[in-house]
Amino acid sequence: MLNQNKESKITLLGAGPGDPDLLTLKGVKALQAADVVLYDALTNEALLEHARADAIKIYVGKRSGEHSYPQETINKLMIDYALNYGHVVRLKGGDPFVFGRGYEELDYAASYSIPVDVIPGISSSIGVPGLQQIPVTHRGLSESFWVITGTTTSGEVSNDIYQAAESNATVLVLMGLKKIAKIVEIFKAAGRCHLPTAVVQNGSSAEEKLVVGTVETIESLVKKENIKAPALLIFGEVVSLHPSFKKLVKQYASIA
Amino acid sequence: MLNQNKESKITLLGAGPGDPDLLTLKGVKALQAADVVLYDALTNEALLEHARADAIKIYVGKRSGEHSYPQETINKLMIDYALNYGHVVRLKGGDPFVFGRGYEELDYAASYSIPVDVIPGISSSIGVPGLQQIPVTHRGLSESFWVITGTTTSGEVSNDIYQAAESNATVLVLMGLKKIAKIVEIFKAAGRCHLPTAVVQNGSSAEEKLVVGTVETIESLVKKENIKAPALLIFGEVVSLHPSFKKLVKQYASIA
Repeated sequence: MLNQNKESKITLLGAGPGDPDLLTLKGVKALQAADVVLYDALTNEALLEHARADAIKIYVGKRSGEHSYPQETINKLMIDYALNYGHVVRLKGGDPFVFGRGYEELDYAASYSIPVDVIPGISSSIGVPGLQQIPVTHRGLSESFWVITGTTTSGEVSNDIYQAAESNATVLVLMGLKKIAKIVEIFKAAGRCHLPTAVVQNGSSAEEKLVVGTVETIESLVKKENIKAPALLIFGEVVSLHPSFKKLVKQYASIA
Repeated sequence: MLNQNKESKITLLGAGPGDPDLLTLKGVKALQAADVVLYDALTNEALLEHARADAIKIYVGKRSGEHSYPQETINKLMIDYALNYGHVVRLKGGDPFVFGRGYEELDYAASYSIPVDVIPGISSSIGVPGLQQIPVTHRGLSESFWVITGTTTSGEVSNDIYQAAESNATVLVLMGLKKIAKIVEIFKAAGRCHLPTAVVQNGSSAEEKLVVGTVETIESLVKKENIKAPALLIFGEVVSLHPSFKKLVKQYASIA
C-alpha cells in the first residue's frame, strides 16, 4: 500500500538458480519485509510466497527474444516504487552481479540517493554443475574456473572465450547456447577437440536436462536431445568425473 | 543416537561465506534432518543451531597452519558416522566444490556405496565482492570472472594466475594472502601496475575489513591495515566502481 512515511530502500536480491529452496535465509527476510517485489523471468514465482500478501509483485522479466521492459524501464520502476511505497526488493535470477546488470540498477538508485543493499545468490555457474556432482575445481584436474557470458552487448562472442579455450581453467559459459557452434569452433581451433564438455538446461528445476560429451560431440548432442535455453555450458576435465562421461568412455573402448 | 535402522546418507552442504543468514533454505532443512554434522573451521558455529539438539556435532576444521584432521581422517569419520548413525551433513565453508575438496569426499563416499547429496553454497568468490558492492561483472568493464586458488597442492602459486594476469577477466584469488607478494609480481610483470585491486578479510562477518588500491599499492596497504586470512584478492577494473577507489582517484588528482 502507498505509504509516504516509509523510508525508500532497494534490495538487490539473488534468487539462486531456480529451486526456490536455494534462496538464502537473508533473502527470505528481505522478501518478508518488502513493500514491492520486482522479479525477473529467471526467478521462480514460488519465491513470491515469502512476500506479504499485500506486497506489490511486478514481473519485469526479459525472456530471450522478448523486448518488453528494457533496462531503463526497470530502473525507473524501481525508483518510482521505492519513492512511493518504501522497500523495493529487486529479485534477480542467480547472483545479482553475475551478468545480471545489477550494478547498473545499484548505480541508478545511488543517483537518486536511495540506499541499496545487496544479498548474494547462488550463481548457476557454480551451483548447477555442483548439483550434477560436477565440481568446478578438483585437485589434479582444475585449479581455477572461469565464468563467461556467451551473449555480449555487441551480440558477438566475448573475446574472453578465445583466451579461456587456451587456459587450464574449467570454463563455464552462461547464456551461450545460441552461440554454441561458434564457441565449439573456438575450442577446436585451440586444439581442445577431446575436452570433456557438458550442457545443463534449466539447472536445479524440474525441467533440468544434462548432456555430456566432448567439444567434438556436444553440438550434435544438444540438437539430438533438444536442449533449450536457459542452459549452462561446461568445458573442462572435471566433466570427466560425471558418471555418464565414464559410461561414454567405456562405450568408445568397446567399439575400438 | 546410534540407530542401526537408519539409512546411511551424506550431504555435502555449502555454508556460504560466513554470515549464517547466507545459508540456503535447503541447507537449513538438511541440518534439521542431520544425525551428525561434521563442520569446518570456516563455517559459522551459529549454523549448528539448525541441527537437532541430539545430533552429533564434530569440528573437523583445518585452520591455516594446523595439521589436525587430515583429509583422509575426515573422509573416514564421514563414512563411520554415516554407517553407524545415518544422515551425515558435511558442512563446508562457501561452496563444497570451490577449492573445498568436496569431490574427494563425494568420491570416497561413493566407494562405500553411500548416497551423496550436494547442496551448493554461496561462494565467497562472488558473494564477498557483491556484499562490498563490487560486481564481478559489469557491462563495459568485465565480461567474465576467473576464480583461482592462491595455494596449490605443491605450495607454488597456480600457473593459472600467470594467464589470468594477462586476461580481461575480473580475477578473484582465494587463499592467496600469504602469496600476495608473488601474485602482485605476476600482475606487474604483465604490465598491470595500475589495475584496481582490493582485498577483503573475513567477508560477510563482523570482522570484515576492506582495502582498496592498485596492483602497485595493495601489498603495502595489506600490511598497513594488518589484513589477516581468510581473505579474498580482487583484481579488475570493476574494483574502480567502489566508492573508496573513487576517493583514491580524487586524492591523487589533488596531489598532482
